[in-house]
Amino acid sequence: MFDYTFSERMSALQPSAIREILKATAGKDVIAFSAGNPSPASFPAAAMAEIAADIFRDNYAGALQYGITEGLPSLREQTFDRLKAKFSIGREFDRLIITSGGQQAIELATKVLVNEGDTVICEDPSFIGALNAIRSYRPNLVGVPMDEEGIDVAKVEEILKTDKRVRMIYVIPTFQNPSGGVMSLARRKALLELAERYNVMILEDNPYYELRFAGEHIPTIKSMDDKGRVIYAGSYSKIISPGMRIGFCVAPEEIINKMVVAKQVSDVHTNQFFMMLVSEYLARYDLDAHIKGICDLYGKKCDLMYSELSKYNNGYFDVRKPEGGLFMWLTMPKGNGAELAKLCAARGVAVVPGSAFLADESKISPCIRLNYSLPSDEDIVRGIKILCDTAAEYLSGK
Amino acid sequence: MFDYTFSERMSALQPSAIREILKATAGKDVIAFSAGNPSPASFPAAAMAEIAADIFRDNYAGALQYGITEGLPSLREQTFDRLKAKFSIGREFDRLIITSGGQQAIELATKVLVNEGDTVICEDPSFIGALNAIRSYRPNLVGVPMDEEGIDVAKVEEILKTDKRVRMIYVIPTFQNPSGGVMSLARRKALLELAERYNVMILEDNPYYELRFAGEHIPTIKSMDDKGRVIYAGSYSKIISPGMRIGFCVAPEEIINKMVVAKQVSDVHTNQFFMMLVSEYLARYDLDAHIKGICDLYGKKCDLMYSELSKYNNGYFDVRKPEGGLFMWLTMPKGNGAELAKLCAARGVAVVPGSAFLADESKISPCIRLNYSLPSDEDIVRGIKILCDTAAEYLSGK
Repeated sequence: MFDYTFSERMSALQPSAIREILKATAGKDVIAFSAGNPSPASFPAAAMAEIAADIFRDNYAGALQYGITEGLPSLREQTFDRLKAKFSIGREFDRLIITSGGQQAIELATKVLVNEGDTVICEDPSFIGALNAIRSYRPNLVGVPMDEEGIDVAKVEEILKTDKRVRMIYVIPTFQNPSGGVMSLARRKALLELAERYNVMILEDNPYYELRFAGEHIPTIKSMDDKGRVIYAGSYSKIISPGMRIGFCVAPEEIINKMVVAKQVSDVHTNQFFMMLVSEYLARYDLDAHIKGICDLYGKKCDLMYSELSKYNNGYFDVRKPEGGLFMWLTMPKGNGAELAKLCAARGVAVVPGSAFLADESKISPCIRLNYSLPSDEDIVRGIKILCDTAAEYLSGK
Repeated sequence: MFDYTFSERMSALQPSAIREILKATAGKDVIAFSAGNPSPASFPAAAMAEIAADIFRDNYAGALQYGITEGLPSLREQTFDRLKAKFSIGREFDRLIITSGGQQAIELATKVLVNEGDTVICEDPSFIGALNAIRSYRPNLVGVPMDEEGIDVAKVEEILKTDKRVRMIYVIPTFQNPSGGVMSLARRKALLELAERYNVMILEDNPYYELRFAGEHIPTIKSMDDKGRVIYAGSYSKIISPGMRIGFCVAPEEIINKMVVAKQVSDVHTNQFFMMLVSEYLARYDLDAHIKGICDLYGKKCDLMYSELSKYNNGYFDVRKPEGGLFMWLTMPKGNGAELAKLCAARGVAVVPGSAFLADESKISPCIRLNYSLPSDEDIVRGIKILCDTAAEYLSGK
């Protein structure tokens, strides 16, 4: 057989550890705290079924035909108007493109902006899917640690001062994946000010923003962006359905135009039928009310996971209670999250080791990430007990 | 405002001329010979509506949730089995990935295989969407002319002999876009032999293969590939629906594995609902019978366009009658197809100038491409008359 060599940009890239865990556990009887999946109860399935039938009856020719790369005009307009009215996102100079999930917005933004060898700053830990998308264009990826207020902006400025090739700062300011943390307003302002001063772009990835079930709303960085420094990636995955792969990106017109060219060569356009379906859903139904239902559900699941943890957590984990999003982040006083994850998997509980989210994946992390949106209440109760028992054994041997 | 600079890979890339023409004419009262769209009559809409309702009733949770990057297992298996049984495509060493349209297969293959500065050989003219996908990874793109038998393999060998950086040969052997031509069996074999001898990969793009309405079936290059040299890109766009964006790629396992990593960072997976829908369509219905209906329809439309052209074509165009696919290719004895296209557009007929398909887009081409699958019979009759009248005037002034 032929021995294949791959491009330099892809040869070092491995499949996402999380997706491999998901694949390995698919269909098996495990308690999955490892996913990033919304609850199926969060899908407005009855409404979607009704709209789908209407589209097949009234406009199948349009829904099954090629569409334009920018995305369905009505959906672009509805999405932009909603972001503007509800969150003050978008200025005169901004435009919106529909993407195949929020993931594609990150990949396209990197493709059009970042040359090989440019520096990209990210939070450390951060979302593995985004880090790999960025890595696939061979930048120098530099992770900056976070504290309770978010990314260490002093450290960011240090890098900006010395490294003239910084092109982009990638952050998930709200309900960060994996840490669950929220960047403070002061830090958001400071980061934007740094981007303006040092002539770099911010990529604000914000798929969990509307999933707040406690605490106070904090403005997005994009809502403060009067100078066209912020590329905003959002998604309908967590508030309608992830399987349909519909996200969006708001950025200055010039950047969106270039992303359109990049999307054209990537997948021509996003699934036309589901763009119509979401557009019609927004027209007929109250998305805000639907989201409120999701928040109530996740708030309860988060409470349950946290209270179960509190019962059995005998100093094994440091945990901060999330105010929204999908994830709880657990830090052990010592040890390796990957070792704990392996032990848990053997007992039928899947969790993601913290090292999977590091800019430098070869480092050891004493953390694990838990998801509370997907597992049933029963699984949460059973799984947290197993997790704590396993941690007790693991840490006693350390 | 901020002055944006883009990555080197994207800064030279322009939107596809065709998609810009489509956008400009969208919703306007023009006769569109410019599209690459299937006829809406080719969509099995009633069957799809029925299946969609069943999925919403029986399995909405799976259809709206995240899926795996490789694609829905049942659809992968059905697609692979059909290719194998019907066209002898796929060996022991091959695997199949579901892609977001055939376009994504081309983009992913290039991303994982081609380094900046590597050489990629293509037919000249060729499909603009593929050329731009390839260009976005900054190779040296070399176009090789075709004759009635397809790409000039002697010329290909000349390049392979002198250029040690050739990595990939991109071809559309059957009903080529834009020329409508079919590569002879001898040329297919010769090309595969060259790929084996000179250690390069062939990317065989084959979206129109099943749309044959005349002449004899010719085996794909992939069906002769015993050594793992051919990456095969196919699609359900032209035989079920393009708006759903479902294609596939068959290649040696090692290459597919790397493409999975690239797809993971690009869009995570293809629209889950429509993968289920197509899988169920294949299980319940006779796709071959459906395709036969499409071939009958396009054969008639092609006949009509050709006979109308024969009525008014007073030496303006050299035309070969296609045996399948979507396109007719017209060559003027002199002049510039772009100038003719402009004159036609002013009279309400949209055609695509040949220069849009050249590896070197700055060259002048005396050709235009016509599509016969989308326009109505009435539009074909009216539009061909206008086209010929316009050509008469244009050429008389040359």
